[in-house]
Amino acid sequence: MKLMKYYLIRLKNGSQMKNKIFVGEFIGSCFLVMIIVGSGLMAENLSNDVAVMLIANTIATGAGLFVLITVFADVSGAHFNPFVSIAMTITGKLKKKLLPYYIIAQLIGCLIGVGLANFFFEHDIYELSTKSRDGIYIFTSEVIATLGLIIIIFGSMKSGKIAVAASVGLYITAGYWFTSSTSFANPAVAIARTFTESFTGISYLNTPYYILAELVGMLIAVFIVKKLFLVKN
Amino acid sequence: MKLMKYYLIRLKNGSQMKNKIFVGEFIGSCFLVMIIVGSGLMAENLSNDVAVMLIANTIATGAGLFVLITVFADVSGAHFNPFVSIAMTITGKLKKKLLPYYIIAQLIGCLIGVGLANFFFEHDIYELSTKSRDGIYIFTSEVIATLGLIIIIFGSMKSGKIAVAASVGLYITAGYWFTSSTSFANPAVAIARTFTESFTGISYLNTPYYILAELVGMLIAVFIVKKLFLVKN
Amino acid sequence: MKLMKYYLIRLKNGSQMKNKIFVGEFIGSCFLVMIIVGSGLMAENLSNDVAVMLIANTIATGAGLFVLITVFADVSGAHFNPFVSIAMTITGKLKKKLLPYYIIAQLIGCLIGVGLANFFFEHDIYELSTKSRDGIYIFTSEVIATLGLIIIIFGSMKSGKIAVAASVGLYITAGYWFTSSTSFANPAVAIARTFTESFTGISYLNTPYYILAELVGMLIAVFIVKKLFLVKN
Amino acid sequence: MKLMKYYLIRLKNGSQMKNKIFVGEFIGSCFLVMIIVGSGLMAENLSNDVAVMLIANTIATGAGLFVLITVFADVSGAHFNPFVSIAMTITGKLKKKLLPYYIIAQLIGCLIGVGLANFFFEHDIYELSTKSRDGIYIFTSEVIATLGLIIIIFGSMKSGKIAVAASVGLYITAGYWFTSSTSFANPAVAIARTFTESFTGISYLNTPYYILAELVGMLIAVFIVKKLFLVKN
Repeated sequence: MKLMKYYLIRLKNGSQMKNKIFVGEFIGSCFLVMIIVGSGLMAENLSNDVAVMLIANTIATGAGLFVLITVFADVSGAHFNPFVSIAMTITGKLKKKLLPYYIIAQLIGCLIGVGLANFFFEHDIYELSTKSRDGIYIFTSEVIATLGLIIIIFGSMKSGKIAVAASVGLYITAGYWFTSSTSFANPAVAIARTFTESFTGISYLNTPYYILAELVGMLIAVFIVKKLFLVKN
Repeated sequence: MKLMKYYLIRLKNGSQMKNKIFVGEFIGSCFLVMIIVGSGLMAENLSNDVAVMLIANTIATGAGLFVLITVFADVSGAHFNPFVSIAMTITGKLKKKLLPYYIIAQLIGCLIGVGLANFFFEHDIYELSTKSRDGIYIFTSEVIATLGLIIIIFGSMKSGKIAVAASVGLYITAGYWFTSSTSFANPAVAIARTFTESFTGISYLNTPYYILAELVGMLIAVFIVKKLFLVKN
Repeated sequence: MKLMKYYLIRLKNGSQMKNKIFVGEFIGSCFLVMIIVGSGLMAENLSNDVAVMLIANTIATGAGLFVLITVFADVSGAHFNPFVSIAMTITGKLKKKLLPYYIIAQLIGCLIGVGLANFFFEHDIYELSTKSRDGIYIFTSEVIATLGLIIIIFGSMKSGKIAVAASVGLYITAGYWFTSSTSFANPAVAIARTFTESFTGISYLNTPYYILAELVGMLIAVFIVKKLFLVKN
Repeated sequence: MKLMKYYLIRLKNGSQMKNKIFVGEFIGSCFLVMIIVGSGLMAENLSNDVAVMLIANTIATGAGLFVLITVFADVSGAHFNPFVSIAMTITGKLKKKLLPYYIIAQLIGCLIGVGLANFFFEHDIYELSTKSRDGIYIFTSEVIATLGLIIIIFGSMKSGKIAVAASVGLYITAGYWFTSSTSFANPAVAIARTFTESFTGISYLNTPYYILAELVGMLIAVFIVKKLFLVKN
């Protein structure tokens, strides 16, 4: 909370643009996690078939990502993901000094999002997940999941924001199924999901490994992206 | 019926435009509720898995919203929702004197829609729902659901009607799952759903609280929208 | 077969355009019924939950309609539906003398489509359905289903073929669920579906009533469409 | 591996373009098979209802195809399918001397994709499928599946890459259901799927017949496409 206050004060003194970025990333990240966690809670209340739960969770998440990116693309770029923001910084598409605003807004947004989703479904606002997601198989799949996400973001960018929105939404739609990690591909989301004891949760013991896998995937992806999409020819 | 007659007479004396608005909002709202309630009735006839029912209900509603907004955007703006029309009025995007035409058309359309859906599936044309949807958790989630809807409508408007149609359809697709209220986010729809004793119904005891929650969400959203999307910069 | 030969001969002497129309409508209608009936056969082989069957049937049909309209819109207009072609003729959007080519191609296409689907899944190529779909409730819902289809086709036409493709695909997606008739909304498809003893079949005793309901719905829709979308203002 | 090395060396000496084509087709084909096989493995872990499994597999595959085509269309044309590349060559849309780069990249990509998917879900990296998919019914449906795929690719090409991406993704979405072969429609994918003992596998005894059926379907389609879409008029 102190940190949040600090940044809110700094933002007041900052430019209109920084404000917009902060608010865009905050609202978007908050809704993203609300959608991921909330739809998981709803699904687990309604069904006994885990595949049906994951289908519901998938549809809600894919739909939500499309909407949030469409709406916030012109406000903040609609990253909602620290590793996306870092990849943008590495490739020169985001000014280094703006990066902290992105990451802080994303983290706060995701944490408030999980709290709201828990509250909606009468869980404790913050609770620790005990859901184990570990092993080299899951780790590897999370590397590939994140690698894929970064590639498709950079690969669809020149086709306009609706193409990016559709591509990211549908990539995660596929990702929930083709990876054994269910493609978190986002460290802020991974941290937030540590605080829900439900279908979409992750044990705090596994969260650091997820983030490490995502980091590795992102870095490899940036290397590929530079060769494939950012070369003039 | 008297009210309907009264407005039909007034409309005859009014302009072509008012007629179009009335007919557009009436047909759209009628089909919207027919789709929401009818798909719920069909689903509940066919399955025992409540998550499967809600998936069917979700797919039909999301698809229907996309179509109706695409088709009626140029006729009436495709609000189908009194609080959307009021938000448009507050932000100066809809003339105050047109507002009653919107709201009356929406209410009549929704009420005829629920009657038709009930009739299709051999229910009483109008029947009172006993489905309880109450508590602070549901109330809060309905506030957030409506807040989100208004934000994404204003946020996607500058990208054209297809973007709005896709965004609203997919936002409600997510909303059916991430909120414990299942995101009615529309007072005319909430009133209509009071009159079906089925999967998508709501007890008349809860309807006023839903409408109150939607009002609160809409007003907060208008505040955010003004800062985020309606400021020149 | 004689009829088919007759038309093929006439087409050889006719213009390139008539050929293209015939082939476009024939292939499109054939695939449309193959998709509707085939996906129903697959679904009924794989599940016991009727809602899950209808979800699969819905996804396949909606997806198929989008693709077929996108691909054949510039070839033949992608009607695949005699009542759509007749509505186009009534409103002056299709030359009267081309109408027979459309209807014959659609009927032949649909009949070959159902035969192929039956064959794929080891049914008799042509078999009579015993699936009862009768009663005033279903009749009324089929009127409204067709009325809606015609309205959304005319209403989305000015937004381009992709908008029409998406609107028709998603309207039928919703229609499978919100009407108790499951929205055939197409007499050639209704006739073809008489010849499969499976999930998507219809008893030959009910087919004429479906076609009558579709005719009524189409005629009312043409009246509305003229007022709403075809008036200059 | 020797072959792969040989081509990598040749590519180093080749042009930038050939490199891009190879990498685009390789990554795209790899992700395509990862998505197909991985989502099948996940689905079969989570459910007992085979229709639910196929729905999950369908959603993931359709979504994945849209994304991969959107992202790689401008890199390599996004074929990911030897028979698509051959059809492009026959119709003069692809230079003959580039064809080997396509096919090799697709085969290697698909084979690595199936290995990764198997690994993610703790299967042997390469294992032989025992899943029988034979008979004249399935063979015929695979002919029609591939015929349809080639027609819709050529038919949607003039509407731009997003239209192709949506059409292919949604055609396969329908194809998983309306054909008894589940529409592989791709020889490289068929070969790769021979190496997973799971929901999406195919016995090596049936793979050659699938490829033969796909060849027949592709050749008929090229004939139709030439008459329908490639004639100046």
